[in-house]
Amino acid sequence: MLAEIKGLNEECGIFGIWGHEDAARLTYYGLHSLQHRGQEGAGIVAAHNGSLSGHKGLGLVTDVFQSGTLDALKGAAAIGHVRYSTAGGGGYENVQPLLFRSQTGSMALAHNGNLTNAIELKLALEGQGSIFQTTSDTEVFAHLIRRSQAPTFVGQMKEALSQIEGAFAFLLLTEEALYVALDPHGFRPLSLGRLGSAYVVASETCAFDVIGATYEREVAPGELLIISHEGVRSERFAPRQPRSICSMEYIYFARPDSHVDGINVHTARKNLGKRLALEAPAEADIVTGVPDSSISVAIGYAEASGIPYELGLIKNRYVGRTFIQPSQALREQGVKMKLSPVRGVVAGKRVVMVDDSIVRGTTSRRIVTMLREAGAVEVHVRISAPPITHPCFYGIDTSSREELIAAKYSVEEIRRLIGADSLAFLSQEGMLEAIGRPDVSPERGQCLACFTGQYPTRIGRAVRPCLTVK
Amino acid sequence: MLAEIKGLNEECGIFGIWGHEDAARLTYYGLHSLQHRGQEGAGIVAAHNGSLSGHKGLGLVTDVFQSGTLDALKGAAAIGHVRYSTAGGGGYENVQPLLFRSQTGSMALAHNGNLTNAIELKLALEGQGSIFQTTSDTEVFAHLIRRSQAPTFVGQMKEALSQIEGAFAFLLLTEEALYVALDPHGFRPLSLGRLGSAYVVASETCAFDVIGATYEREVAPGELLIISHEGVRSERFAPRQPRSICSMEYIYFARPDSHVDGINVHTARKNLGKRLALEAPAEADIVTGVPDSSISVAIGYAEASGIPYELGLIKNRYVGRTFIQPSQALREQGVKMKLSPVRGVVAGKRVVMVDDSIVRGTTSRRIVTMLREAGAVEVHVRISAPPITHPCFYGIDTSSREELIAAKYSVEEIRRLIGADSLAFLSQEGMLEAIGRPDVSPERGQCLACFTGQYPTRIGRAVRPCLTVK
Amino acid sequence: MLAEIKGLNEECGIFGIWGHEDAARLTYYGLHSLQHRGQEGAGIVAAHNGSLSGHKGLGLVTDVFQSGTLDALKGAAAIGHVRYSTAGGGGYENVQPLLFRSQTGSMALAHNGNLTNAIELKLALEGQGSIFQTTSDTEVFAHLIRRSQAPTFVGQMKEALSQIEGAFAFLLLTEEALYVALDPHGFRPLSLGRLGSAYVVASETCAFDVIGATYEREVAPGELLIISHEGVRSERFAPRQPRSICSMEYIYFARPDSHVDGINVHTARKNLGKRLALEAPAEADIVTGVPDSSISVAIGYAEASGIPYELGLIKNRYVGRTFIQPSQALREQGVKMKLSPVRGVVAGKRVVMVDDSIVRGTTSRRIVTMLREAGAVEVHVRISAPPITHPCFYGIDTSSREELIAAKYSVEEIRRLIGADSLAFLSQEGMLEAIGRPDVSPERGQCLACFTGQYPTRIGRAVRPCLTVK
Amino acid sequence: MLAEIKGLNEECGIFGIWGHEDAARLTYYGLHSLQHRGQEGAGIVAAHNGSLSGHKGLGLVTDVFQSGTLDALKGAAAIGHVRYSTAGGGGYENVQPLLFRSQTGSMALAHNGNLTNAIELKLALEGQGSIFQTTSDTEVFAHLIRRSQAPTFVGQMKEALSQIEGAFAFLLLTEEALYVALDPHGFRPLSLGRLGSAYVVASETCAFDVIGATYEREVAPGELLIISHEGVRSERFAPRQPRSICSMEYIYFARPDSHVDGINVHTARKNLGKRLALEAPAEADIVTGVPDSSISVAIGYAEASGIPYELGLIKNRYVGRTFIQPSQALREQGVKMKLSPVRGVVAGKRVVMVDDSIVRGTTSRRIVTMLREAGAVEVHVRISAPPITHPCFYGIDTSSREELIAAKYSVEEIRRLIGADSLAFLSQEGMLEAIGRPDVSPERGQCLACFTGQYPTRIGRAVRPCLTVK
Repeated sequence: MLAEIKGLNEECGIFGIWGHEDAARLTYYGLHSLQHRGQEGAGIVAAHNGSLSGHKGLGLVTDVFQSGTLDALKGAAAIGHVRYSTAGGGGYENVQPLLFRSQTGSMALAHNGNLTNAIELKLALEGQGSIFQTTSDTEVFAHLIRRSQAPTFVGQMKEALSQIEGAFAFLLLTEEALYVALDPHGFRPLSLGRLGSAYVVASETCAFDVIGATYEREVAPGELLIISHEGVRSERFAPRQPRSICSMEYIYFARPDSHVDGINVHTARKNLGKRLALEAPAEADIVTGVPDSSISVAIGYAEASGIPYELGLIKNRYVGRTFIQPSQALREQGVKMKLSPVRGVVAGKRVVMVDDSIVRGTTSRRIVTMLREAGAVEVHVRISAPPITHPCFYGIDTSSREELIAAKYSVEEIRRLIGADSLAFLSQEGMLEAIGRPDVSPERGQCLACFTGQYPTRIGRAVRPCLTVK
Repeated sequence: MLAEIKGLNEECGIFGIWGHEDAARLTYYGLHSLQHRGQEGAGIVAAHNGSLSGHKGLGLVTDVFQSGTLDALKGAAAIGHVRYSTAGGGGYENVQPLLFRSQTGSMALAHNGNLTNAIELKLALEGQGSIFQTTSDTEVFAHLIRRSQAPTFVGQMKEALSQIEGAFAFLLLTEEALYVALDPHGFRPLSLGRLGSAYVVASETCAFDVIGATYEREVAPGELLIISHEGVRSERFAPRQPRSICSMEYIYFARPDSHVDGINVHTARKNLGKRLALEAPAEADIVTGVPDSSISVAIGYAEASGIPYELGLIKNRYVGRTFIQPSQALREQGVKMKLSPVRGVVAGKRVVMVDDSIVRGTTSRRIVTMLREAGAVEVHVRISAPPITHPCFYGIDTSSREELIAAKYSVEEIRRLIGADSLAFLSQEGMLEAIGRPDVSPERGQCLACFTGQYPTRIGRAVRPCLTVK
Repeated sequence: MLAEIKGLNEECGIFGIWGHEDAARLTYYGLHSLQHRGQEGAGIVAAHNGSLSGHKGLGLVTDVFQSGTLDALKGAAAIGHVRYSTAGGGGYENVQPLLFRSQTGSMALAHNGNLTNAIELKLALEGQGSIFQTTSDTEVFAHLIRRSQAPTFVGQMKEALSQIEGAFAFLLLTEEALYVALDPHGFRPLSLGRLGSAYVVASETCAFDVIGATYEREVAPGELLIISHEGVRSERFAPRQPRSICSMEYIYFARPDSHVDGINVHTARKNLGKRLALEAPAEADIVTGVPDSSISVAIGYAEASGIPYELGLIKNRYVGRTFIQPSQALREQGVKMKLSPVRGVVAGKRVVMVDDSIVRGTTSRRIVTMLREAGAVEVHVRISAPPITHPCFYGIDTSSREELIAAKYSVEEIRRLIGADSLAFLSQEGMLEAIGRPDVSPERGQCLACFTGQYPTRIGRAVRPCLTVK
Repeated sequence: MLAEIKGLNEECGIFGIWGHEDAARLTYYGLHSLQHRGQEGAGIVAAHNGSLSGHKGLGLVTDVFQSGTLDALKGAAAIGHVRYSTAGGGGYENVQPLLFRSQTGSMALAHNGNLTNAIELKLALEGQGSIFQTTSDTEVFAHLIRRSQAPTFVGQMKEALSQIEGAFAFLLLTEEALYVALDPHGFRPLSLGRLGSAYVVASETCAFDVIGATYEREVAPGELLIISHEGVRSERFAPRQPRSICSMEYIYFARPDSHVDGINVHTARKNLGKRLALEAPAEADIVTGVPDSSISVAIGYAEASGIPYELGLIKNRYVGRTFIQPSQALREQGVKMKLSPVRGVVAGKRVVMVDDSIVRGTTSRRIVTMLREAGAVEVHVRISAPPITHPCFYGIDTSSREELIAAKYSVEEIRRLIGADSLAFLSQEGMLEAIGRPDVSPERGQCLACFTGQYPTRIGRAVRPCLTVK
């Protein structure tokens, strides 16, 4: 399951609002609904009376903000960020939005994605005397803007956007406007909505539902939106490429209630489950899903197969940063951390266990073992995506190829390694049809690089999948 | 939904272990899995080298305990408690286990339930010079033990147990033994398990699954277990009454993966949903459940009715004590707190909304309105239990009768008040059959007092449903 | 110096106010000025609208109270307590005021002193079924009140006061009145003041200065004051004994700006220094005092001797509970903790080092060594009190006799043990004259037990100096 | 008194060590002893295995560092900083040492002082595309180094040092060396010491005493020290100017036990007091000093005048960031914050009140009023320095000239404004002689700008006394 690498990937959530007097507070609720996209840090910057002020910290949104800190963030425009990982190091400094003040004006920056030529750009800038305060690739973008000699700020942004490569959804706030930019391939989701006369932007539409906003449209790949008191202006900073939205948004990341590029995630997952039941049926007594991402898939599998859906695995909800991990000794005695099998449900049963992926295989093996120890007589593993065989350079650190079990072993070998009675992956075709995004469509295309190794962009030579700068 | 009164009820979770060198740490994991039964406070007391030591605090288990505090709780026996509410006041003082030290020996006490004659007993004890440090009814039990002139400790406990009335599951730890007692009607669940050579006791079996323990049997109503280095000894402190386990454990409280008195809660809920679909079908496009308790019910309803199950309502997972509530103004503008409708799922749809109960009706009305504002064209409310018409005195504060909407209005009137297109409650017979507990069975009987007003015990004159002592 | 035992003694500070709408807030400032008397915990209980509410915690007054917690303590009457030590164990529970609620009324209790028959009384009360929640002797007093069958509350208090022995200054707050009691020997200081129409009571008069109150008079030994809306009523609960106020209040504990039983502490200390210069002159270049208690003494010594007073030793002001102690290795390399010698001041000088006492001798030896290592060519130690040869049972835990260096060694032997060039103690007569309290005076007598072994009261058989109850 | 402006000034303390395995821990103790120079924030950066790691935070040294955070700062070299004020804004970001990482190497910077051409430099750098992360002038120095094209790091530092003006004492740590630089006028104190084979540098010598280090010599104005494994190398980056050490270091800032440029501060202050007694005698009963800076002065005054030194004013020691300020209403009723008069000492007395300065006059008036309300019959104010008539641009924000009472009023007018019976300032000549630093001496000269308006350096046109950058 992808959750096994969550400590490493770079996925984030961003939210912005322009034109509402409670901008910071609404950003708080928006970020809160995006919390599943990043639990390591959170921040908000608001624009008020010609100046920006912000607050950020390590931890959950509810840890970072108190009523007083929110009240201090006055103004009718704000952007916010939740950060998934501390990869890149630096802790607090790397929490976004990054706020850049200067004698002539300030700007704040929130970024979801991963720049594939960040190191090259950074080395060049440092050679010219620039000082970086963070180890994040996001700061590179700010320096490029400041170094630009273009006469207007929009011109400086476009010049900077033309220099960076990879996956990026940017929100940039100044005293004058909220700027929104999505990379030419549209690797990450980014939606535009309305709340009364205010504009909102968010990584997922669940942030609109929680604040009562209505969905307007997707931000287009290569588009630069300038939202100000004059309304929304749309420009292009790059010619549009075929859409390459990340498959994992549907399979793993996004909240089931979100619509990602117009498609409801729960429904997409149920369809993945139904298709999986057709492609890879199993003789079994119950279907169970690995929470949270595979619950909808399992329900779909159950519906299509007629095998009853039961709660054979439970995720412990309150596992946060302060949870005390069991010692090795206790784990060997059977103490479970995040996931427990439900003995009374699986004992004596043939179980179909639905999961979203197999990365290194260790987690899958652990779950299979867990189910058997709880009495399952057979465990049939069904994966709602094709095998992951290649690393991702667009924001998900599936590390090096050597660690990917599917890069080295056949399905049958993996089955043996994880100890399952049977194992099946969903076909690429099945996945695309279930989600409803044909690969080749310029409008509704999907990034398949981790399954195929065909990367939609150049990958910078010096780049490591996860930007870690010493 | 019952969650609307969670600030008021007295439900708790208890866990005990005897004979394992990591007793406190296992109690931590056990409590953690019982966190849904009480989120206001948590505590653990361990017995080591002839003395008891404890730690407790307000907040979640993971807030209260750090690695260091756990390490300090040495010993091979421990009991723990998670507390639902601060009703009764007193905050920290009332967090359990209560630890009573004396010159001659110490004891710690953890309690799930509600004594119906606590005030009477407390007044009498204070008249004799006793000083209470908490406002909880649990402390009464300790004073009764200390006042008893019986020659043995077991004798003192039995004398005390014979004086108290109502609902109680007690864990009492001394340096010599772990004592376990369940009231004669067995209102609350209490299970016994094994972990290697150690014994464990818990409110729900999910605590066994999480530590890898195996289920042995239920603690019987009126039974007193004495667990010590001599093993388990069973005694009776009262003749057995017909079992009156709380219906709400199945309907609302317990975790879906737990087996309550031998019955899996998820399966029971799916059966409630199936039965509900038969008793109260609806012409609709989707079925959705109010999270978390009604998800399983909704899946069952969908399965039996053929209407697809969709995620029309989402609960925001990370709403804890530090969550900043939206202002009234923001709420009126549509900002949601715990529950949001999923616009893209419900818009234009006829929705079956499955919930566990209607208490005051305000929450149900809010959800119905929410769904309509999100575009639902019809909302059909289905409740997986009969109408609640009477207050509970056994641990759930459904307050006074006047506040219970079903005590004053007909189903049709309630439908109008909550603004639903149709409304149906499950029949009492349907509920009992779906769960699989015939009311009249001495072995598998269920408390129906909140539906019928027929209380299995005397209710003390001066007692208020929720013990609040000035 | 006495500070070396501060982790062990039981000295505390108490403050009470009746008749001011900002009662809790004024108690906060009062406690703050008494912080030197106890830094381990603090608490305040206020009476408002017929009920008591309180807040307490471990740490400094400024750690324990935030603006919000103070605001919550409404009402025109309040008592507060700062606690010196965690001796007796129990941490938070033992922080005072202790608050006792019952169905018929509540009371809060703050205590400075030590009961010498606490264990005897406690054993008897537990034998009758009483349950103690703390390990402090203070709680015994509450139980005696509750057990009393006297018809009035004042009668119950008097009955309880007649049963306890030792040193005690009590503040007891109910909804109706503030009760103030001082033991018949008056071991501890307790002053009465006025702030407009309000009454204030405090361990030291510095608490009056800080809130702008005026001093009225001392609370008399054996006196019980009842302060209510009817004004102040004075009663006696015991015949007056000759005053035995603790010598150490003048020598070590009290703030130099306080007047203890009418005598300014700074002036008393300067007089101790002058007398010491006469009794024990030294050939030296500079006089320096061990901060904080001996600064005034050193100034007096300098004034009388003509030797200049210099800052040869400095106390690091910000050493609180969170200070990280140097490792043994670092200490051996010369890292100082609380006290540092000032090399540039003492190097090459003959130094008179004035201190308040020598308890175990280890601290004195350390300071002498420190001064020599910083270059002092001679160190002449002068102590502003007679040798401490006997343990205290009235609130200062000077431990067992074996640990008292002066109980086992002659002055010359002590000089050698601490490595001083000369050593002198002030004579008992000199001390009494300098402070201005003749020992034998019934009005202005002073407890000399730690110097003479003549205890003004019976010492309970089972009692340990510092009440530590298992 | 100068303390009245402490919220505004920029005074700081710095500490560095090279060549000791407990470098970070010794820096902790060093900073702790310099805490009086800055209480708003603290930080430490250590060099280990070719990389720098740091920890910093808002609050006292003991708040910011826990044992674990210190342990994580491994390595044999470290620098630390305590920060006085948040002027310049930005809070956490501005806490030093500032740590600058780059792909080619890292450096950490700690600064005491104020650059008088910071704004000019900053505007120029931003015009070239540099991004500043803090609002402190310190960061300017780092950018100048990075922009320098000099071939060696020492060359880059010298080029940067030649561009900045004003008061600065810098510690700069890289993996290779500890660099120490003092501005050509030597406005701020900076001493070099030894601890075994290690080198230490600190703002005040009290930091040496606390860790057991020995004093070596002062860092010279215009000197650049390079401390590395090759030992100490001294270079000059500017020709030496006459020394202009800040007078206020002796009068107000430094700890009395420190030697500032070789002169013991307590002794200097006693001499100031003696001289003041000669220049401005008073008919009075007691002498009292405003704590903490004027205690030594008052003792000197008492010694020279024969009037007894008494504790007429007391400073409340535990007033930290968490202290709850009294409301205006309570203050009007007499509640004191930091300073209280001792009624029993001053009542009926003619009081000489010794203070270090009068800035705006409001604090002095408050203290005089306080003393009168406590019963003083006469109050004679004596100031241990000449009148402050001009703003400081070297690190002490005495704000604009309009706010300085002595810039607008005569001594007699000030006397009337503060309500004293008499008022006298020490003469400039008296001050210089008492401290022992003739103004004109190139070796031992003293900055008198705030008394005379004669600034030793050019003051940049755009510069505000306290660098506040929007």
